Amino acid sequence: MGNPTAAMLVIGDEILSGRTRDTNTNHLATQLTGRGIRLCEARVVADDHAAIVAALNALRGAYDHVFTSGGIGPTHDDITADAVAAAFGVGIDVRDDAHEILKAHYQRTGLELNAMRLRMARIPEGAVLIDNPISAAPGFTLGNVHVMAGVPAIFEAMVASVLPGLTGGDPLLSQMIDVPRGEGEIAQALKDLAGKYPALSFGSYPYQRNGAYGTQLVVRGTDAGLLAAAMVELASLAGAA
Amino acid sequence: MGNPTAAMLVIGDEILSGRTRDTNTNHLATQLTGRGIRLCEARVVADDHAAIVAALNALRGAYDHVFTSGGIGPTHDDITADAVAAAFGVGIDVRDDAHEILKAHYQRTGLELNAMRLRMARIPEGAVLIDNPISAAPGFTLGNVHVMAGVPAIFEAMVASVLPGLTGGDPLLSQMIDVPRGEGEIAQALKDLAGKYPALSFGSYPYQRNGAYGTQLVVRGTDAGLLAAAMVELASLAGAA
Repeated sequence: MGNPTAAMLVIGDEILSGRTRDTNTNHLATQLTGRGIRLCEARVVADDHAAIVAALNALRGAYDHVFTSGGIGPTHDDITADAVAAAFGVGIDVRDDAHEILKAHYQRTGLELNAMRLRMARIPEGAVLIDNPISAAPGFTLGNVHVMAGVPAIFEAMVASVLPGLTGGDPLLSQMIDVPRGEGEIAQALKDLAGKYPALSFGSYPYQRNGAYGTQLVVRGTDAGLLAAAMVELASLAGAA
Repeated sequence: MGNPTAAMLVIGDEILSGRTRDTNTNHLATQLTGRGIRLCEARVVADDHAAIVAALNALRGAYDHVFTSGGIGPTHDDITADAVAAAFGVGIDVRDDAHEILKAHYQRTGLELNAMRLRMARIPEGAVLIDNPISAAPGFTLGNVHVMAGVPAIFEAMVASVLPGLTGGDPLLSQMIDVPRGEGEIAQALKDLAGKYPALSFGSYPYQRNGAYGTQLVVRGTDAGLLAAAMVELASLAGAA
């Protein structure tokens, strides 16, 4: 299916230590699905230069888009921008337009634009800034890599400003049906259906509720007609013994 | 720091479509941290044989342990066990001990152990079973790869049975202090401290609460004395202008 592809790269020790739950991947996944862009892989790496560079180079070569989250703040462990520059083999320095954005923000808030905060104006050569309507410090797009903040509210605002500029694909449609029986009982019929509709993907998600087994069946694809036909067959599967 | 290392591999289209939030990575991260095992990387891949095999081989070569979540149920898209066998280049078939476990479970519950459910007794050659106290179908350990269910309650039970058998490291200690000022204001002092205590890692997490900026500072390491010394300095940082 010719939909554009994407990967997510979450950067941050706090996710890997368990201190913080990553919510950005789920948000991005939902947004991309809505635009017909297929999220194919997600990775979490530590605040480690070599690890970030290696992941960036693997992902940007394999997918149409890479979205990153985290590591673009003012502190010593915010090293994402430098890692992106290294991955692309380009220079990085404080850039005038980003500097102006920070100056205006700190004048407005009465805080000092000190040397560490100025690090947030370091932008790799050739990048296009991504607006940050919440705390000013911009993200950026370089090639097919979109570099965004880790704070969820800022990440989400940046995703909202990046997505309209990307070429989407046919919307990825999905439909769900709840079947009051165990996954193993309907697995053969589901396999047969999956074989009959190779353009659709069939997922099954077992649950137990009040002691009874049930399964949620989810069908995904881009062809609304096929999807409707498959749902009719699934519904009869749900009703049949 | 000589702690054992680990990676997490989450397998499942439903995470990448945004339908389901992965909670297993956070659970594993917390449990590993408590045992002094360092979670260095996490990946999410689709229900795709080649993608699972490639990720398994990359991760099992790079880290002491790999934990997987998802894809070991009875349906056609549960392909993790076959992918693990392929990654290790070993055979896979229904194994007697796993078969007996399923037989007993389905006799007890009065359900039929049909051909699709029997797929859950397919175990790669040389693997050791992981107990599933909830729905019987076992996970398994092959080499340094621990293959577990995606359903969170089952994943967590399997982690609980695997972890005591692994060699841990010095406990990864952490302490946190809440500083009522912006991340950018304390970034330079934090950088200086990080330089003074190279054996510790310093993380800073900005927040905004009732309109006021603040920062949570987290220090991590295995040396309790160093950690205490750094916290004294951080506390004075929190109090100073």
